[in-house]
Amino acid sequence: MKNILLFILFSLAINLFAEDGSRLWLRYELLSEQISENYKQIISTVCPITYSETTKIITREFLSAFEDMTGKRLNLSKKRTGNCLVFLIDKKIEKGYSIQTQKDNKSGISILIAAADDINLLYGTFHLLRLMQMQGNISDLNIVEKPAYDRRILNHWDNIDGTIERGYAGRSLWNWEDLPEKSDPRYTEYARANASIGINGTVLNNVNANPKFISREYLIKTAEIANIFRKWGIRVYLSVNFSSPSELGGLPTSDPLNKEVRRWWKEKAKEIYSFIPDFGGFLVKANSEGLPGPQDFGRTHVDGANLLAEALEPYGGIVMWRAFVYDAKSTDRAKQAYDEFMPLDGRFHKNVIIQVKNGPIDFQPREPLHPLFGAMQKTPLMIEFQITQEYLGFSKQLAYLAPLYVECLQSDTYAKGKGSVTAKCTDGTLFPQTITAIAGVANTGNDSNWTGHHFAQANWYCFGRLAWNHELTSEHIADEWLRMTFSNETAFIEPVKRMMAESREAVVNYMMPLGLAHLFAWEHHYGPEPWLNIPDARPDWMPSYYHKADAIGLGFDRTHAGSNAVSQYFPPLSTIYDQIETCPENLLLWFHHVPWNYRMQNGNTLWENLCRKYQDGVEAAREFQKIWDKTAFFIDKERFEHVQSKLKVQTRDAIWWRDACLLYFQTFSRQPIPYEQERPVHTLEELNVSKF
Amino acid sequence: MKNILLFILFSLAINLFAEDGSRLWLRYELLSEQISENYKQIISTVCPITYSETTKIITREFLSAFEDMTGKRLNLSKKRTGNCLVFLIDKKIEKGYSIQTQKDNKSGISILIAAADDINLLYGTFHLLRLMQMQGNISDLNIVEKPAYDRRILNHWDNIDGTIERGYAGRSLWNWEDLPEKSDPRYTEYARANASIGINGTVLNNVNANPKFISREYLIKTAEIANIFRKWGIRVYLSVNFSSPSELGGLPTSDPLNKEVRRWWKEKAKEIYSFIPDFGGFLVKANSEGLPGPQDFGRTHVDGANLLAEALEPYGGIVMWRAFVYDAKSTDRAKQAYDEFMPLDGRFHKNVIIQVKNGPIDFQPREPLHPLFGAMQKTPLMIEFQITQEYLGFSKQLAYLAPLYVECLQSDTYAKGKGSVTAKCTDGTLFPQTITAIAGVANTGNDSNWTGHHFAQANWYCFGRLAWNHELTSEHIADEWLRMTFSNETAFIEPVKRMMAESREAVVNYMMPLGLAHLFAWEHHYGPEPWLNIPDARPDWMPSYYHKADAIGLGFDRTHAGSNAVSQYFPPLSTIYDQIETCPENLLLWFHHVPWNYRMQNGNTLWENLCRKYQDGVEAAREFQKIWDKTAFFIDKERFEHVQSKLKVQTRDAIWWRDACLLYFQTFSRQPIPYEQERPVHTLEELNVSKF
Repeated sequence: MKNILLFILFSLAINLFAEDGSRLWLRYELLSEQISENYKQIISTVCPITYSETTKIITREFLSAFEDMTGKRLNLSKKRTGNCLVFLIDKKIEKGYSIQTQKDNKSGISILIAAADDINLLYGTFHLLRLMQMQGNISDLNIVEKPAYDRRILNHWDNIDGTIERGYAGRSLWNWEDLPEKSDPRYTEYARANASIGINGTVLNNVNANPKFISREYLIKTAEIANIFRKWGIRVYLSVNFSSPSELGGLPTSDPLNKEVRRWWKEKAKEIYSFIPDFGGFLVKANSEGLPGPQDFGRTHVDGANLLAEALEPYGGIVMWRAFVYDAKSTDRAKQAYDEFMPLDGRFHKNVIIQVKNGPIDFQPREPLHPLFGAMQKTPLMIEFQITQEYLGFSKQLAYLAPLYVECLQSDTYAKGKGSVTAKCTDGTLFPQTITAIAGVANTGNDSNWTGHHFAQANWYCFGRLAWNHELTSEHIADEWLRMTFSNETAFIEPVKRMMAESREAVVNYMMPLGLAHLFAWEHHYGPEPWLNIPDARPDWMPSYYHKADAIGLGFDRTHAGSNAVSQYFPPLSTIYDQIETCPENLLLWFHHVPWNYRMQNGNTLWENLCRKYQDGVEAAREFQKIWDKTAFFIDKERFEHVQSKLKVQTRDAIWWRDACLLYFQTFSRQPIPYEQERPVHTLEELNVSKF
Repeated sequence: MKNILLFILFSLAINLFAEDGSRLWLRYELLSEQISENYKQIISTVCPITYSETTKIITREFLSAFEDMTGKRLNLSKKRTGNCLVFLIDKKIEKGYSIQTQKDNKSGISILIAAADDINLLYGTFHLLRLMQMQGNISDLNIVEKPAYDRRILNHWDNIDGTIERGYAGRSLWNWEDLPEKSDPRYTEYARANASIGINGTVLNNVNANPKFISREYLIKTAEIANIFRKWGIRVYLSVNFSSPSELGGLPTSDPLNKEVRRWWKEKAKEIYSFIPDFGGFLVKANSEGLPGPQDFGRTHVDGANLLAEALEPYGGIVMWRAFVYDAKSTDRAKQAYDEFMPLDGRFHKNVIIQVKNGPIDFQPREPLHPLFGAMQKTPLMIEFQITQEYLGFSKQLAYLAPLYVECLQSDTYAKGKGSVTAKCTDGTLFPQTITAIAGVANTGNDSNWTGHHFAQANWYCFGRLAWNHELTSEHIADEWLRMTFSNETAFIEPVKRMMAESREAVVNYMMPLGLAHLFAWEHHYGPEPWLNIPDARPDWMPSYYHKADAIGLGFDRTHAGSNAVSQYFPPLSTIYDQIETCPENLLLWFHHVPWNYRMQNGNTLWENLCRKYQDGVEAAREFQKIWDKTAFFIDKERFEHVQSKLKVQTRDAIWWRDACLLYFQTFSRQPIPYEQERPVHTLEELNVSKF
């Protein structure tokens, strides 16, 4: 009887914490007795500083986390004694924070977190807590951390009606209906999660911007969010519609050189700052995919960006002007941003930064680096990554994106000779940048686990970590995230880390290996539709524009004999890409139209390698399932089963991709899929009609 | 220009013969020059006999086939000369035919086909043509062939409205609307195909019989079909509804002991024979699955069968009375036919034969033999096989059924000691049978390839061949069929024959290994629904009735401690099945409720073996795809692609089966699927709602 009662109580206790992923990587699980004894010896008291909302947050976060992890409620002390955690404001520290262990013969060990302001102290606190979550040694710390980019920003493509463009984790977190009267507790949770990884800016609304977002009505709502975010160090930004003066302000034009328009923007900026004194600035998608922009009035991107920049300048705001432009008439979409923006280099106002997607097309599973990086040397550039998996399997598939981000950050542009990696071209190292920034298109929504797929949390996490320190390795970040989010067990960590490390390449392989791009379905960007052909639609929205499959071969000729996009890169990259022999094979079909029987480095033909890559992708997905199924012992049933179920879908859809692409390309190659390889299980006829 | 014209002509020529499978195994492809030279030397003239429609058919068939295969139009000669094909009526030959090569010093070689009647001469002719299609040596023939069963019958489950119960190849071949005025050329093609493999009877309509089929209106229609079939040696039979006297005749009852009822059936028989003088007889499904029968009037199967037998006797007709009976209240459906029929043994009229399905349940992928075989020793029994793949993947999956038929035919009943195989218990060898017969539920329909799947033609073919000679091996029959239907190339034959040989076991493995049965979906008998539970439905129509999965184990306890169905078999079979140690593992779960951790012969547990079998099935299906893809070189594109496409579906659905069954049974076993094994790609949640 007693046992039964205990069992019931135990069951109830378990149910109190539904393992729905809502706690992200901030779980603060109870540590082993040995570890927690050690921590309790090192820290027995906290000496807080208390001058702001943020410093209160720091104390609360640390005390609560420490108690969760060790079971011990720490004492607060105003006087610094031994075994004390001490916070110090040190204005000499220009950026970031330091964490030092200080040994004093009299008072014993202290841990000192120092920074120039409360926000950086908060970052240092989260750093220390992360070490403890990972069961690290905190008895001998000598940490100095500086952020790589000053502005580490999430872009939310959230619409005013609560939907999210390319969102796969529910509806928008921002509840505009209820604001400003009622604000969701999740605004705080969101800010806390971001602060824990150093993110300090949020563009609340979609780049396809509704002008209403800068109306007085919505500024009042936004101010409420900004008030909550502020104490977590997060500044609010807004996407603006270039036609706002006419659409919102009722002016007859939005021409950037028009006086009334200029005045309207200045007044709008003044109004914004009256509600949100630390407002970050504007993000602008102009003259892109049907959005209005300065070119509608015969003006340039410079005219447009500077108009807004001048309006924001008095208040310290910036303009993030997107370089994502392409034109239906262009012969090669990959070239257009460079062609349009290079002539404007040096002409932008000093508080303008150009936001450039990592690759020249659009967040494909693999692209070469964008040629503007390193090229626009007189204008600040910022990288835009996509965290939401628009082209990498939505929240249905596990694709850990740190390898993609690192690949871009560490790609050599050769702008100033060897070693001029993208990271250094954008963080102020190689070129004087008045602003440094980095953006990631958020994958959050109101799903209880925030990101739809539990492993998609890792992409939010790794974006933040890399924005802080672009020299971190993918593996290091995965290790941190896994330990905090799931378990410190090596038997869990090692195989799952391997799975994460291989996951993005797996997606590349079963979707678009060897430099293929944009074979996605018209409607959803999830499944394959390489055969898509809609008469009268924009050719650069058709997969055939990208793959160029024909009887001879496959791939887009961007060499000097083709579109010459290679010429947009610095030597020797331009030559490396131009020559089929030196072009990296993982970008081969991006730069070359390659004959089906072309012999690749392994001695097999293009067709054989293509088949093999697709099969490799499928087999990797199957391997992920095997790896994951063995983790059941280490983690909670709820998240185990959720991920298990997603991995099933991933394998199934990997097969869908493989079959669709191989069967379609086979109609051109007219060669069998190598007979030793697993055969398709779909037919083209059936795939042509199958819908997502 | 000339080349283009030639090309056009060539293309047209190709299109004249669409490779749609309509020619079945009677293709008579042009042979190699060497072979055809040899045949032309051996046969230069045909000496026909001409006394019937059938003898005309023989001459036409041989001349046309010979010309197709060799390019040579043979001469006809009334006088027997050298190198002549001669036909001889020899009344001394009781059954079957002989084919002899006779060497005469004067006139050279002759080939002599001899038989007691024209129909057997036709069979001999098809035999010779088969040898030639297979490029056999015909210079030294000494063949004597006798059929194993006198009546070799197809059962068509065709309805009056043109639908086919369990038909997967289009609608019924019989066009009742147009008959008798217009008869379809396909009636002749159908009869010819059957004659070519020795089938000599056809039950035209569904055993779930509409009484209208024996109305005067429909007898006139049926007579037209019978007229066409007659010259090909095929007798027409009809399924009758036991309530016909009341439903069709308007009598107040259909009680078999009622005088009016008896008179009605006698007059009906007379009427039938006035239209169809060689009418074969009745097939009856009575007191089975809601169909009426003698038990409705408190009478027995004997009363019912004998009623009809007496009516047909004056005209030489027979009654095929089905033993497929089972009752919702029975504790074990597998036992009921035996329990109901054994007490009636010896009481049936001499022109009654009991038609018994191969296994005790219902055409499952694997069943033990039906216990009535060998047991009813004073009543003729006939085996009913199912050619249409109701439970073996419809016409979507490749499952060559000769191994299933042979397994049943060669199963030892031990009725008269060792070696009392089912075949010998039904062909008159062991028991005096006034009638010998065998039936197969047809898989034909009006699809251009007759059977939906090109390889399903092989099941029609092998049924006919085994009905003629039950000692043929599956492999031998596959070899014949492949050579005639596709190609004589060894590189084609060998792998495809292997695929066929393994195909039925593959289906067993991915659907219902180790003796499982009836896990099918309620509505379609195609996909898995092991979880099915419809409250208030007949329990013996629910999969759980058959698999009995629970926390302890899996399988139906039919041992002496359970339903004791084992006692219906002769010793030592009863003991072999009763003991878990001796029970064949491929029937283990048919006879035993086996604990999940029971160690099987290979040292692994039941659960592990179950998982492995399902995976083996999936891998076999994948292997079939690989084998088939390599055949493209040897055969026409049309059939290649058709089969290729079906094999894709088969692999996909094999995975569906594996996942559904393993995930469902896992909810009982509570054990992981062995980690080295490929993981499921479906979830139970999704499968529960997925529809066919």
